Amino acid sequence: MQFVASEHQHRRFNPLTGQWVLVSPHRMQRPWSGQEEKPQLNEQAEFDPTNPLCPGVKRPNGMLTPRYESTYVFDNDFPALLEQVPAPPASDDPLFQAAPARGNCRVMCFHPKSNLTLPTMSPTDICAVIDEWIKQFNELSVKYAWVQIFENKGATMGCSNPHPHCQIWSCSFLPTEPQLKQERLRAYYATHERPLLSDYVERELQRKERIVIENSDWLVVVPYWASWPFETMLISRNNNKRINDLTDGQRHNLALTIKQLTTKYDNLFQCSFPYSMGWHGAPTGPEHAHASSAHWTLHALYYPPLLRSATVRKFMVGFELLAMAQRDLTPEQAAQRLRDVDGTRHYLNK
Amino acid sequence: MQFVASEHQHRRFNPLTGQWVLVSPHRMQRPWSGQEEKPQLNEQAEFDPTNPLCPGVKRPNGMLTPRYESTYVFDNDFPALLEQVPAPPASDDPLFQAAPARGNCRVMCFHPKSNLTLPTMSPTDICAVIDEWIKQFNELSVKYAWVQIFENKGATMGCSNPHPHCQIWSCSFLPTEPQLKQERLRAYYATHERPLLSDYVERELQRKERIVIENSDWLVVVPYWASWPFETMLISRNNNKRINDLTDGQRHNLALTIKQLTTKYDNLFQCSFPYSMGWHGAPTGPEHAHASSAHWTLHALYYPPLLRSATVRKFMVGFELLAMAQRDLTPEQAAQRLRDVDGTRHYLNK
Ligand SMILES: O=P(O)(O)O[C@H]1O[C@H](CO)[C@@H](O)[C@H](O)[C@H]1O
Ligand SMILES: O=P(O)(O)O[C@H]1O[C@H](CO)[C@@H](O)[C@H](O)[C@H]1O
Repeated sequence: MQFVASEHQHRRFNPLTGQWVLVSPHRMQRPWSGQEEKPQLNEQAEFDPTNPLCPGVKRPNGMLTPRYESTYVFDNDFPALLEQVPAPPASDDPLFQAAPARGNCRVMCFHPKSNLTLPTMSPTDICAVIDEWIKQFNELSVKYAWVQIFENKGATMGCSNPHPHCQIWSCSFLPTEPQLKQERLRAYYATHERPLLSDYVERELQRKERIVIENSDWLVVVPYWASWPFETMLISRNNNKRINDLTDGQRHNLALTIKQLTTKYDNLFQCSFPYSMGWHGAPTGPEHAHASSAHWTLHALYYPPLLRSATVRKFMVGFELLAMAQRDLTPEQAAQRLRDVDGTRHYLNK
Repeated sequence: MQFVASEHQHRRFNPLTGQWVLVSPHRMQRPWSGQEEKPQLNEQAEFDPTNPLCPGVKRPNGMLTPRYESTYVFDNDFPALLEQVPAPPASDDPLFQAAPARGNCRVMCFHPKSNLTLPTMSPTDICAVIDEWIKQFNELSVKYAWVQIFENKGATMGCSNPHPHCQIWSCSFLPTEPQLKQERLRAYYATHERPLLSDYVERELQRKERIVIENSDWLVVVPYWASWPFETMLISRNNNKRINDLTDGQRHNLALTIKQLTTKYDNLFQCSFPYSMGWHGAPTGPEHAHASSAHWTLHALYYPPLLRSATVRKFMVGFELLAMAQRDLTPEQAAQRLRDVDGTRHYLNK
């Protein structure tokens, strides 16, 4: 029998993490009688006087959120990372190793209106978000080794406030995922003398099987090694290393790309598509300021949990936690569906 | 200022995976206004004529589930792994690597009654579950490199059928997590000439800070590097390598330990505590039959998502997916709470 990727289970290798994912396309027929998600329906009011992220509302700690008109950034009231804390004592036991962690956590509102999301915001408003990301990154990257910009969208993805916002957590150290990527990208560069993701972009453009959006500055693909059903990577085609080295044109194009991608996501199952997304680029801070970043390529990662509809998600549980990631539809099938779905007009505007 | 682990954020190292977890104890005060879970309340009927896992009910594929009286094992109707599939062609591109995957997926019912769970089953009935695990493992480990026994408990953990059951997925290859562990345990053994987990057990018994349950055969701890709020590890104290080398006495004691641990879990928030759990031991199959397993110690991992109550869970999302695992209460605090809560009487029997 001939191997057919869309029919026969196999494993695929993620060169960014060194981990494999199990692809089981024949499993898509499985009926689902488990937990159903509450579909997120873009039903917020424009202003909620009890929501501390809305302009002019008092936060639980007594501070007033100003009447902002574009983006608005403030320190998280319950940060996982603080700037000043004593360091744990050194230990010579390999089984009980602790290390210092300093940092800070900021919350960034995308827009004054609660009833907007990136796909329903205007490109100009999305540009303001990108500019604010860069402003924050410029400030924080001077001090911190890793500035993680990320958005948890939707209650399913642990988002605790429906107002459009993201978070920025800065760390005095390189966290696990970036550290792994740093090592793998460096090793690839040492062998091939090219950034891994530049080679990857080139090859995806040739193969054309996993492309979702393509323009002069950006490529969006469902990676060959994707684990979440409709996972995508938004990759710079300009050898950008970090979000703050984007030109005005690249930023503008990025706004259009984000709008298009998130519109496709929303249109796929006609809901406000939940996901966690975030940016990865070359490390920063005093420690990395003089290190080469030649092996890096700026990219964003989108991890959306939905599998079959607005209410049926993929669970990364038992086998996935204990053994390895597992997916049902193939990355090529996911890419095809995202490619085919309209990215220009949001379903609510039809 | 003096470092206090229960107050000051820090990182801890997981020697089994090489990954760090961020511990932010000061964050426990955070109010929660996000998604609430439906608490699982042990409210099943004893028999549901529409549930294909119940004795005597027809499955969607037309097969009849027999009128079983103890455990019952059958092949998953929608398996992620099949025995016979063609292998993907070899590729010389490091960015597009696929590998073969063969295996099988079985479902194992714990008991004929739908309204029981491990903590509410009798020790004799739990012994039958352990014996069936071993019987299955004996059969499958001859052929497969990795036999993953795991239980997804509760809809929150992706369980799609409320009847008490677990799954057994066998793989022709070593999946990511076991592969990582294999390498790390082997490296530790090469340096220290002792299994890492034997050393770990010994030191936890001395330190006494993270012990939940201790008896002559088994130790349950919240590992020093736990990422889920009430994560535990159930570790053999007898240098067992695999689940099928347990003596009768050890099996019996294991049944009591499982009953006690899961009773504690249920009593903690007075609900049927959701979790994913599974067994890890030395690899198997023809490939590993003659390799040394000296570096391994049999253990089970419990990953429960609940954080503060039956309805408020920890989300492993944005920062966790993109950067690193993060936890709020310390492992010591979690262990203390699990130690203090009653493990002998289930809250429903009070
Ligand atoms: O028990 P089920 O319905 O087969 O499936 C459940 O466990 C599997 C193994 O962890 C996961 O892949 C599924 O996402 C989850 O819903
Ligand atoms: O947005 P929040 O409420 O601060 O928190 C959310 O994102 C954090 C970062 O990914 C996670 O640690 C929390 O579990 C999640 O609920």
